[in-house]
Amino acid sequence: MVTRGLGVLIVAAMATACGRTTDRAATSTTPAAVSSSAQPGDGLPSWNDGPARRAILDFVRRVTREGTADFVPPPARIAVFDNDGTLWAEQPIYVQLAFALDRVKALAPQHPEWKQKQPFKGILEGDHNAVAAAGERGLLEIMAVTHTGNTTDEFAKVVSEWLGSAKHPTIGRPYTELVYQPMLEVLTYLRANGFKTFIVSGGGVEFMRPWTERVYGVPPEQVIGSRARVQYEVKDGHPALRRLAAIDLVDDKAGKPVGIHQVIGRRPIAAFGNSDGDFEMLEWTTSAAGPHFGLIVHHTDAAREWAYDRASHIGTLARGLDEAGKRGWTVVDMRQDWKVIYPLQK
Amino acid sequence: MVTRGLGVLIVAAMATACGRTTDRAATSTTPAAVSSSAQPGDGLPSWNDGPARRAILDFVRRVTREGTADFVPPPARIAVFDNDGTLWAEQPIYVQLAFALDRVKALAPQHPEWKQKQPFKGILEGDHNAVAAAGERGLLEIMAVTHTGNTTDEFAKVVSEWLGSAKHPTIGRPYTELVYQPMLEVLTYLRANGFKTFIVSGGGVEFMRPWTERVYGVPPEQVIGSRARVQYEVKDGHPALRRLAAIDLVDDKAGKPVGIHQVIGRRPIAAFGNSDGDFEMLEWTTSAAGPHFGLIVHHTDAAREWAYDRASHIGTLARGLDEAGKRGWTVVDMRQDWKVIYPLQK
Repeated sequence: MVTRGLGVLIVAAMATACGRTTDRAATSTTPAAVSSSAQPGDGLPSWNDGPARRAILDFVRRVTREGTADFVPPPARIAVFDNDGTLWAEQPIYVQLAFALDRVKALAPQHPEWKQKQPFKGILEGDHNAVAAAGERGLLEIMAVTHTGNTTDEFAKVVSEWLGSAKHPTIGRPYTELVYQPMLEVLTYLRANGFKTFIVSGGGVEFMRPWTERVYGVPPEQVIGSRARVQYEVKDGHPALRRLAAIDLVDDKAGKPVGIHQVIGRRPIAAFGNSDGDFEMLEWTTSAAGPHFGLIVHHTDAAREWAYDRASHIGTLARGLDEAGKRGWTVVDMRQDWKVIYPLQK
Repeated sequence: MVTRGLGVLIVAAMATACGRTTDRAATSTTPAAVSSSAQPGDGLPSWNDGPARRAILDFVRRVTREGTADFVPPPARIAVFDNDGTLWAEQPIYVQLAFALDRVKALAPQHPEWKQKQPFKGILEGDHNAVAAAGERGLLEIMAVTHTGNTTDEFAKVVSEWLGSAKHPTIGRPYTELVYQPMLEVLTYLRANGFKTFIVSGGGVEFMRPWTERVYGVPPEQVIGSRARVQYEVKDGHPALRRLAAIDLVDDKAGKPVGIHQVIGRRPIAAFGNSDGDFEMLEWTTSAAGPHFGLIVHHTDAAREWAYDRASHIGTLARGLDEAGKRGWTVVDMRQDWKVIYPLQK
């Protein structure tokens, strides 16, 4: 796979390119990876008692108490979650980028010219410097050849197959097992209290939909993400949707409220993120007149996960930290607040 | 309001323009307009016994019978409905166009220049010939000034207020009462059998979302339609989504499978439409490998509603009629199959 050094370089390019190319994170359709231990009524068993846990519980109690001013009827209980770094690990590189690099290797036999052409040559030869040297333009080429041209059904199949065998480069577990147990419990707890949970990710929507229902309990129609344009076509009587090399939505930063509006059509009352890419989603959600809730997962646990914020190329978190206090957002201290990070290994 | 003659002219332009401008049909947030008399188990009480009713009941029984080859698990029971002419009346002009014309009158005091400028002058003076003479370009101007520039919250409010007072030009009832009782029963019946029901309309999504939950039981996040681009902006600390004068999706014809893919992310198993604008949605839905169902509402009832198909500028239906048989789609003969058209008047 990719070394951490190269990963950071590529992701630095990608974080920029992400504004124009398709997306980020990825995943699986493999053996059921995750068991959420939270049952309705349990509260949040993997959370240590503290201000973050109490803020979540208090908010949910407040909006579900009928006959009070803060009561929110179930249809309006919309909660949105970022994916990379909020629901699953995003280090050392976005999963979707790992997918793209592996995909180049898988497609190489059909592209003999790649042996002579950067950045593909570098990927195939494990020459990380060459890949990094190709920069943002090289990254866009990688994304284009690995993410477009096929049909939506074909792409979903490729994603599922890859996630069925790929392993995290340092932890060695399938990516879909590297989801945050405490956040799975939040999802379950909210749904048990009448919330509809949506994912709103900068990552590619078609990269998430094949597995979010199994892993998070979030069905495809509740997943919003960056997306390529697709085109309806009928060949020999068989209709398909073809993925074009053009961006339809960059669901990041100010694009997140736009994606939310396009798909959900009303303002959420709770938003969960981890980086400044989620800032506008949190701002939009917590500017509503009625009750609302915003939460940032702060990666503070270098021992059990990763510790990063302002200086990180992945999941940069600066403005969110600066303004969380005055905006009333809850900041999770991963090291303090979470008893466990990932679900128990099967 | 607009005479039928003018209506047809404008809509002819609009049907073309629709490929580029925002949308079509519209509605309300007014007094609860509709009572669906169908209860789970009732079947479809406003449907006469016949091949159409039996086809619906048979399909639902087939996919809900556990342990059989045709069983479809509830999460995959996705049903999509066109709106104009499928769930509510679209004659003599699309409701959204009636809204646009009324909106010009409401905005006129802020635009003294309109007294001298077509097509606005014609609308304000009731000079239908002048409006019609402005053609497609005039129509696009009308749509631009009535549908863009404000925020999404403002637009929703305007739509709701208009529908609270507007009446159908010939029937004299609020538009949201001119929904088809037999189709309300289909919506209810499907939901009672574990289906998730979506609207997929060529009309503007923001024109429908304010009222579809109340009238159809379809929440905003299950409404797909044509849409303007929106932009996130923060002024004096207050975020809003502004509606721009640019089209983001034309959810008609081959745009319907695209809209379905963007929002739902999986292929429906049942599709209901009435015009050739729904052809690709029906084709996409009924090309799936598993069980599937397609239905066309054929407007055959000149006495109780309208009778139109191939020659109509609104709701043109030709290819659908030609190919329904070979594609196994059910065609509803409104005059024969429906006991009533609209819900009882309150």
